[in-house]
Amino acid sequence: MSGKAMTLQECVESCLKSHAMCLDTGRYCMEQQGSHVSAAHLALLLDCAEMCQTTANSLLRHSPQHAAVCEVCARLCEACATDCDKFTSDAQMQRCAQTCRNCASSCRDMAKIRI
Amino acid sequence: MSGKAMTLQECVESCLKSHAMCLDTGRYCMEQQGSHVSAAHLALLLDCAEMCQTTANSLLRHSPQHAAVCEVCARLCEACATDCDKFTSDAQMQRCAQTCRNCASSCRDMAKIRI
Amino acid sequence: MSGKAMTLQECVESCLKSHAMCLDTGRYCMEQQGSHVSAAHLALLLDCAEMCQTTANSLLRHSPQHAAVCEVCARLCEACATDCDKFTSDAQMQRCAQTCRNCASSCRDMAKIRI
Amino acid sequence: MSGKAMTLQECVESCLKSHAMCLDTGRYCMEQQGSHVSAAHLALLLDCAEMCQTTANSLLRHSPQHAAVCEVCARLCEACATDCDKFTSDAQMQRCAQTCRNCASSCRDMAKIRI
Repeated sequence: MSGKAMTLQECVESCLKSHAMCLDTGRYCMEQQGSHVSAAHLALLLDCAEMCQTTANSLLRHSPQHAAVCEVCARLCEACATDCDKFTSDAQMQRCAQTCRNCASSCRDMAKIRI
Repeated sequence: MSGKAMTLQECVESCLKSHAMCLDTGRYCMEQQGSHVSAAHLALLLDCAEMCQTTANSLLRHSPQHAAVCEVCARLCEACATDCDKFTSDAQMQRCAQTCRNCASSCRDMAKIRI
Repeated sequence: MSGKAMTLQECVESCLKSHAMCLDTGRYCMEQQGSHVSAAHLALLLDCAEMCQTTANSLLRHSPQHAAVCEVCARLCEACATDCDKFTSDAQMQRCAQTCRNCASSCRDMAKIRI
Repeated sequence: MSGKAMTLQECVESCLKSHAMCLDTGRYCMEQQGSHVSAAHLALLLDCAEMCQTTANSLLRHSPQHAAVCEVCARLCEACATDCDKFTSDAQMQRCAQTCRNCASSCRDMAKIRI
């Protein structure tokens, strides 16, 4: 596999991981109740999950517009991570923040590559 | 309904129309064969369809990140419209281009509004 | 438009309405808090929303497997409506139940038609 | 992790693999042209991809309706595999058929489990 194909493959995997993590965290938050279930916090998690999925799909289609898609995905992942970081002593939220940051970094790399 | 709620509602509807039109056009292209089924053309149609769906969902969630999502949706809609316009004498492609342009315009308006 | 094409078009529209209604109700529930945000209730709403979307997309693709997809969509819509009905004096939940039931009925009709 | 949680995790992973494989195969078919791009064949691939995604998401939400969703997913995966099998000497199509069959088997197991 070429460097380009490897980066694409890694970015798809980062997006799918972040997608699954955000959905799982959404479920966790709904089970926790309290401040975990603010509408804005859940909207961010679900938005991030769906954009990660859309980005993975765009990459799998080798879309000519993948760079724009990757850039907005990185932005949503960072916003979601910042929001999750507010729950400083909650292990699930910390894992979610980390997974989103990894995905954001992978998407920024991918946005620079022509496919 | 306030002006803000009307714009949101209209933008959701524009996105859903553009989403359905792009999927329908994708099916039409696969039935036409020939130059209609270039991989890049179909990738653009499917990307645009999915991003319109993601944007409608983000707006329905009143997501704090809706502006970034609307901006990238407008960009994909314009790219898809430009590609459809190349089929100058094909009525389905012309309708698809117009529907995508309407959605792009609606998304640009929505990106300026706080929800 | 033939009767078949009309039924397909109506079913796509019912699915898109139910999809939007379930997402909007999900947001409403998160804003209400309390019993509205049980994890199972929200999971049903989000499942129903996503299956309605998947069904609309399957119909727009004229998929050979649309009947199986329509049947499971009808089932999820009924389950979601039954759950929403428990909130007897809440207008949003009653509207959501009605919209899901309309979609279920439309999907059952569509499942009997060959496309 | 309990046996139940392991089965759920494995089923999510099977669904995501099958989803990615079907989208990748769809792109491959569009690049191959000819009999690969029949509208019905591509509709099956895209339907299977989307249903696998919907199923993974339903499982990640621990949805009360996961069994019905897993059953229809298994059915679409089998239909897609049968269609891919017709391209007997094409390695990509054979890999896609195998991945879909694995997912179908995993979904049938998951449909029997209460979560």
